[in-house]
Amino acid sequence: MPRPYSCRAGVLRIDFKRIIMTKTPPPSTTPASGFRDFLPVEASRRSRLMSLISDTYESFGFEPIDSPALENLNVLEGSGGGDENEKLIFKVLKRGEKFKQALGKSDENDYADLGLRFDLTVPLSRMVAEYRGQIHFPWKVFHIANVWRAERAQKGRFREFTQCDVDIIGSKSQAAELEVIQAVAWATHRAGARGFELKINDRRILLALAKHFGFGDSQADAFAILLDKKDKVPVDELEKDLCELAGKKLSSDLQDVLRGSFGLDRVKSLVGDIADSLQSLIESLEALKLPLERISFDASLARGLSYYTGTVFELRHASAGYSLGGGGRYDKLIGRFSKHEVPACGFSIGFDRLLLLLAESETLADKPVFIPVMDEKLRLKLSTLAAEIRSEGIKVDLYPEEAKLKAQFKFASDKAYRWVLILGEDEDKEGLIKLKDFQSGQETSLAQAQLKTTLKNLLFQASSR
Amino acid sequence: MPRPYSCRAGVLRIDFKRIIMTKTPPPSTTPASGFRDFLPVEASRRSRLMSLISDTYESFGFEPIDSPALENLNVLEGSGGGDENEKLIFKVLKRGEKFKQALGKSDENDYADLGLRFDLTVPLSRMVAEYRGQIHFPWKVFHIANVWRAERAQKGRFREFTQCDVDIIGSKSQAAELEVIQAVAWATHRAGARGFELKINDRRILLALAKHFGFGDSQADAFAILLDKKDKVPVDELEKDLCELAGKKLSSDLQDVLRGSFGLDRVKSLVGDIADSLQSLIESLEALKLPLERISFDASLARGLSYYTGTVFELRHASAGYSLGGGGRYDKLIGRFSKHEVPACGFSIGFDRLLLLLAESETLADKPVFIPVMDEKLRLKLSTLAAEIRSEGIKVDLYPEEAKLKAQFKFASDKAYRWVLILGEDEDKEGLIKLKDFQSGQETSLAQAQLKTTLKNLLFQASSR
Repeated sequence: MPRPYSCRAGVLRIDFKRIIMTKTPPPSTTPASGFRDFLPVEASRRSRLMSLISDTYESFGFEPIDSPALENLNVLEGSGGGDENEKLIFKVLKRGEKFKQALGKSDENDYADLGLRFDLTVPLSRMVAEYRGQIHFPWKVFHIANVWRAERAQKGRFREFTQCDVDIIGSKSQAAELEVIQAVAWATHRAGARGFELKINDRRILLALAKHFGFGDSQADAFAILLDKKDKVPVDELEKDLCELAGKKLSSDLQDVLRGSFGLDRVKSLVGDIADSLQSLIESLEALKLPLERISFDASLARGLSYYTGTVFELRHASAGYSLGGGGRYDKLIGRFSKHEVPACGFSIGFDRLLLLLAESETLADKPVFIPVMDEKLRLKLSTLAAEIRSEGIKVDLYPEEAKLKAQFKFASDKAYRWVLILGEDEDKEGLIKLKDFQSGQETSLAQAQLKTTLKNLLFQASSR
Repeated sequence: MPRPYSCRAGVLRIDFKRIIMTKTPPPSTTPASGFRDFLPVEASRRSRLMSLISDTYESFGFEPIDSPALENLNVLEGSGGGDENEKLIFKVLKRGEKFKQALGKSDENDYADLGLRFDLTVPLSRMVAEYRGQIHFPWKVFHIANVWRAERAQKGRFREFTQCDVDIIGSKSQAAELEVIQAVAWATHRAGARGFELKINDRRILLALAKHFGFGDSQADAFAILLDKKDKVPVDELEKDLCELAGKKLSSDLQDVLRGSFGLDRVKSLVGDIADSLQSLIESLEALKLPLERISFDASLARGLSYYTGTVFELRHASAGYSLGGGGRYDKLIGRFSKHEVPACGFSIGFDRLLLLLAESETLADKPVFIPVMDEKLRLKLSTLAAEIRSEGIKVDLYPEEAKLKAQFKFASDKAYRWVLILGEDEDKEGLIKLKDFQSGQETSLAQAQLKTTLKNLLFQASSR
C-alpha cells in the first residue's frame, strides 16, 4: 500500500481520509450476530453429548460419513425440499476475476457460486447419487455436523447449529423406519433425557385428508404448510387461515385433526392400506419397549419439508414447545441428483435443542488430577510423573508457569478439580507424595511407588458412585 | 415467482427464456472444487484420529473450546497474522436489503459482511479478549475444528481442512511451550505415528540474523517470508531471491543457515540470552524423553505468520516434504482485540496431513456383531436381542429389510464384520443361537442364555491381540 502522504516538487500532500481510515478501532470481539462461542464447560458438554449420540448410532451398525460445509449453489437450491430453508442459504462471494465479471449484475447468484449447507439430507442425497457404484445397499449411515441458516437472529434461534442425522438408504422396508427410530430413541435415552414422545404420520395420509376436506391438488401443499405452523401460531389464527384456504367453515373432522383427536381408525376409511401399515409400525415400536414415554399417531403432523414421501415422525417433549428431532421417508430426493431413484429414510436429532433439555452431569473421573509445581526445579520431575500417570488413562493437569501455591490452588478449584498431588523437595527426599482431596480437605502421604494404584482405586470408586 | 406466461387482453405472452431456464439439468454430484466427501471407511478413520488427539489433549488438562465457522470480516482481516491467508478468505454475501444497497459498488467488502475462519488462532484470540473477565489464567484450551481457505484447487491441497490446536493463554513462562509440545508429541504418538522431528527457532533470532546479514528493518519480513518458502522452491532459486534482496552475494553464514548447519552456539554471539533460553527449552524437552525422533534448532525456521513473537516450532517427518504441524508464541495478537495484551503460546496439528501418514488400523472390537434377519416374523425378537447385546457395550448391526441370506451375508462381508449371530425358527424353538466366525468359517451353537458372556469373551480376546 503506498504511503498516505507524498512529497513532490517540495509540496507535501497528505491524504487525511486514508490516515483516519488506517486508524480503525479494534474489531468487536462478540461473535457475529446469531453465532455462538463455546467456553470449556459448554464445549465439554457438547462434545460428550456428541460422542454419546455417535456411539449409540454406531452400536446399531450405522457408519459415519461427512460432507463439505460448502456445496455448489445449484446443489442446495431447488432441492424440492429446502423450500423455506433455501431462502436462508448463506451464499459465498465469487472470488477474483469471477467477482469482477459479476459487477453490474443484480441477482444474488451472479455474485455467489457456493453456499453453506442448510441441512444434512441434501448433501447425503448428492453423495448417494455420486457414489452409487461403490455403495452396497442398504446403506446405514450417520452424519453429525453443523448446518447454517441465515435466520433473523432472535433468542434461542441460531445461525449455526448441529444436526445428528441417521439414515438408511436403499430400502423400502418398514424395518428401516424401525431401525432409525430405535437408534434415535436410545441415543436420547443414553444422553440422559427422559419423557420423550414420538409422533407419527404419513405424508400420503395428509394428502388424503386434504382431499377429504375438499382442498384441491394445488392447495394440498398450502394445507401441509399451515399444519406445520401449529407450534408457532395460536390455534384460532391457524383455524382462521384454514377457513380462508378452504373458503368455508372448518368441518368437525378438520377440527378433530387440529385437536389431535382424529385417530388412525378414522383414517382407515380414507386410505386403508397406509393406515394399516402405519398401525403395524406403531405396534412394532411398542413391542420393542423403546425408552419413549408415548408413541402416537398425529394426523396433523406435517413436517415442513416437501421432500418427504411417506412416513414422517417427530420427537417431542412435554417441557418444550417445539420438536427435538424429526424425520421420515424421502424416496424421491436422491432421484433429483441421478437418473436412479433410491428409497431412503432418516431421522435427525436437533442437537442444540436436546442439549437445552439436559441437565449438566459429569463423572468425577472425567476431571484431571492436578499437580501444582512447588518449585520450578522440580518441573521436569513432575512432568515425567504426570506422563506416567497419564499412561494409566488418568488425566493430569500441571500448572504451566511459576506461581505462588495460592494461585495454583485457585486455578485447580476454578476448574473444579478434586484430587491434587503435592510433591515438594521435602517429600521428594523421603520418596513420598501427598494426595489432597479438595472435597474433604483430607491429606494423605503415600509412597511414590504406590501412587498409581491408589489413584486408580480412588478415581474408579468416585466415578462408579 | 410469477408464471413464465401471462394473458392480457386476449394476448398470450410467453417468456421462453424463463421456461428454458427452469428446465435445468440435474446438478453435478461431485463435491465443489477443492472440497471432499468422506465415505464411511475414511470418515471412521478421521473420527477415531480426532478422538485420540482430543483425548490426549484432555489428558494434559486442556479443555475444549469452540468458535463459529463464520466471523465478522473485520475480525479475520488485518489480524496482522493472516498475511497470505487473509487473501484466501471465503467471504459471505450480504443478504436482503444490504445486498441491494451494495449493488453498483465495486469492492468485495461492499458485498460481504462475514467470512469463514482461515485458522483457529485468530478466533481464539478474539474469544480471549471477549471473555477475559471470566477466564482464569493461565488458560489451557484446545480447539479441533475445520478451517477454510480459497486456495487454488490442486492435488493434496484442500479448501476445507481440520486443525487441532492446543494453546496456553496468559503465561510468559517457557513451561507453556513445554506443555503444548508435550501434548502434540504424545497425540501423534498415540495416533500411531512414529519418527517425527521437532524443529525449533525463535522469531527474535531470525530478526537478529536478518540484521547480521545486513537486511534493514523493512527487509526483515521479506527475509522471513523467503525462508518460509524453503519447502516450496528449489534451493538455488531461494538463494537467487535472497541475493537479490541483499543486493550482494550470500555470505557463508547465510549459506550455513539455509543448509541448516548454523548452530545455536553461533547464535549466542548475536543474541546470547535468547539462544540460552532456547537451549534450555531443547534440553528440557530432551530430558522428558518425548516420543520424537529428533529435537533440533533450525535457524532457517520462519513459520510464515507474522503474529509470532518468540519461539516457533514445526513438526516434520522424513517421509513428508512439508510440515505436519507448527506453532509458537504470539504475545501480541490478543492485544489487537483488546487494550490488554495477553501472552500466548500454541501448537497446531495439521490433521489431514497427519492422517495421510498413518496406515489404517482398526481393532476387531470396533466392528459390530451382525444379525441377519432369517425370517421377517423374527425381526422384533431379533431387535430385542440386539438391544440386550448393545447394553453390554457391544455394537450390533441388524439387516434392515427382508432379503435373501446371501445378500445379507454379502452386506456383512462388505462391512468386514467377523461375528454373525444366526437365529432362525429352528434355533429359536430349541433356545439356541448359532455364532458364526466369518474369518475361520467356524459355526458354534450356543444356549441363548450364554450368548452375552460368550460374545464378551470373544470380542475382548480379539481386540487385545
